[in-house]
Amino acid sequence: MSTPTAIARSSGTAAFATAVESALTQFFATRRATVQQLGPVFVEAADELELFVLRGGKRTRPSFAWTGWVGAGGDPNAADATAVLNACAALELVQACALIHDDIIDSSRTRRRFPTVHVDFEQRHRNRGWIGDPEHYGTSVAILVGDLALAWADDMVHASGLDPAVIARFAPVWSQMRTEVLGGQLLDIYGEAGGDESVEAAMRINRYKTAAYTVERPLHLGAAIADADPALIAAYRTFGTDIGIAFQLRDDLLGVFGDPAVTGKPSGDDLREGKRTVLLADALQRADLTDPAAAALLRASIGTDLDADQVERIRALLTDLGAVDEVERRITELTEQGLAAIEASSATASAKEQLRAMALAATRRAA
Amino acid sequence: MSTPTAIARSSGTAAFATAVESALTQFFATRRATVQQLGPVFVEAADELELFVLRGGKRTRPSFAWTGWVGAGGDPNAADATAVLNACAALELVQACALIHDDIIDSSRTRRRFPTVHVDFEQRHRNRGWIGDPEHYGTSVAILVGDLALAWADDMVHASGLDPAVIARFAPVWSQMRTEVLGGQLLDIYGEAGGDESVEAAMRINRYKTAAYTVERPLHLGAAIADADPALIAAYRTFGTDIGIAFQLRDDLLGVFGDPAVTGKPSGDDLREGKRTVLLADALQRADLTDPAAAALLRASIGTDLDADQVERIRALLTDLGAVDEVERRITELTEQGLAAIEASSATASAKEQLRAMALAATRRAA
Repeated sequence: MSTPTAIARSSGTAAFATAVESALTQFFATRRATVQQLGPVFVEAADELELFVLRGGKRTRPSFAWTGWVGAGGDPNAADATAVLNACAALELVQACALIHDDIIDSSRTRRRFPTVHVDFEQRHRNRGWIGDPEHYGTSVAILVGDLALAWADDMVHASGLDPAVIARFAPVWSQMRTEVLGGQLLDIYGEAGGDESVEAAMRINRYKTAAYTVERPLHLGAAIADADPALIAAYRTFGTDIGIAFQLRDDLLGVFGDPAVTGKPSGDDLREGKRTVLLADALQRADLTDPAAAALLRASIGTDLDADQVERIRALLTDLGAVDEVERRITELTEQGLAAIEASSATASAKEQLRAMALAATRRAA
Repeated sequence: MSTPTAIARSSGTAAFATAVESALTQFFATRRATVQQLGPVFVEAADELELFVLRGGKRTRPSFAWTGWVGAGGDPNAADATAVLNACAALELVQACALIHDDIIDSSRTRRRFPTVHVDFEQRHRNRGWIGDPEHYGTSVAILVGDLALAWADDMVHASGLDPAVIARFAPVWSQMRTEVLGGQLLDIYGEAGGDESVEAAMRINRYKTAAYTVERPLHLGAAIADADPALIAAYRTFGTDIGIAFQLRDDLLGVFGDPAVTGKPSGDDLREGKRTVLLADALQRADLTDPAAAALLRASIGTDLDADQVERIRALLTDLGAVDEVERRITELTEQGLAAIEASSATASAKEQLRAMALAATRRAA
């Protein structure tokens, strides 16, 4: 693994991502004896999980956690820096569970251009000519592989090398984070099934499913490791909530207006999937007040198999209604608020710089 | 909650179960603020989990963990006894995850005469006339409720009041236990899909899915809290493996020969479900050697919708082939081995007595 010293100045970069991946690889190696004892079929499942975790991702959550620690005075040259990196990397295993289970829930067939875990095991079942329903088998295995990721996330924290007293500070924040992301996922599927069209519902999902889980709690975890004072934790949490929501709002815009060549997703996919975004909620609210025909068209189109022309028409509608501008305005406002909170905090100068760069990357990105 | 003193002499009894339930109720109460903050739909999910956990069960795993602690010198009158009880009770949340996800995997519609979690949410979706597929919705919510149980199991350990140094001893065993039960579940569904008929495969599933998870590791967890010496841990593990497997073998016999009025399950249900038990594997092995027609009948019948007469015929076959006697022989042998290991150990006299009673209850039960 790269030395933590080399990582310190590069959180959010490819070098940091590599260090996180090394930590994960080493953790998986420590599981191997138990995995092999359980037999070859368990080896297959654990290998799938390892491949899934190492295949990609921006390592966003470990980056925020690491920066939170450094910003609260954590010393990347200290003896415990490797342990901290391990604990930060464990966030990628929570994320693996979230993605694997989300892909079942969303019936997604591919992720990062590879088959999703449930689809992969469905195909193995089919290729082997096994007994029973391949689809149900794939879902079953993927539920368990996701569970394994969630259990191993904890194990990685415990095996990180952090002092038990530090883990005791870390645990309540870790607990909040996991409850919040699961709560956010539940709100999401409830909202979709119940047809909740309100901006408030969409914002609440952004708050818990994305912001708390991706930025706020990772920073808070880093702060807890460093035993930061309450004022810095409060600043981190404000920054995390605001930037996290802004990040999701940017994601919503990209889901409708993004360039498929850059995002890797078919253009307008969020519209076809009927995703309940703030963008859509705001557009519906506006249309209900000013343009009932547009509102009816939106409601009739969202979640259907739209062709390119129809996607183009919805895009124009979202823009004309002012919903796109409103979301851009929210992104700008949240980003400014979040940055101001960090600027006024006691975070180290280098962490402030780092967080500013990460905030802008998250809210101004094209993919 | 009952005082731990009152619990100490009664592990495995109704009084102990009540104490475990009180600990769980108190834990759920500590989650309420976070749950309510996430909104009413999350309250509904958390309430469902609480109801599920408190509705029933024999509290077998907490009982073994508590007895393991007391048997290794843990003092039920000491100040930390309540913390130990909380940590033991957390096993019920791991079990909730295992059951909720297993019920999805097994497509089970009822558990303990109530709708399973995925069926319950499927019905709510239907009753509310919501958007989308009710079945998929039920599965999605149940995946997340199971994840919540798994995450909260950890949280309950961390919030138990155990000293961080004790939690550090507890964690690696907790880790092994969760990996083993997930591994056992994976082996189970792989074996079923792949049609593995071997006694060895069935025994391996019993070893990990049941024995390690239900008896061996709970005792080991109790021993880890008490900082027991390696010889006592080894004795606990031998006892746990042997008694745990014997327990599962008894379960397999009850799944075919049990009285529905006592077991609460339709008679012969394991045969209809095509469950790959040691009983069946042994019968197939014997039939292949001595009675090819019986082997063919077994293979053609298992996993089909058998009527009462057909179930009766399969029962007679399993008995006549000698498989029932063989399983009974294994149960006796394992029980004797397990009891001998405990007898020769340094466990306290009262714990030995307790474990003997629990072993006999687990292996001689009628339901």
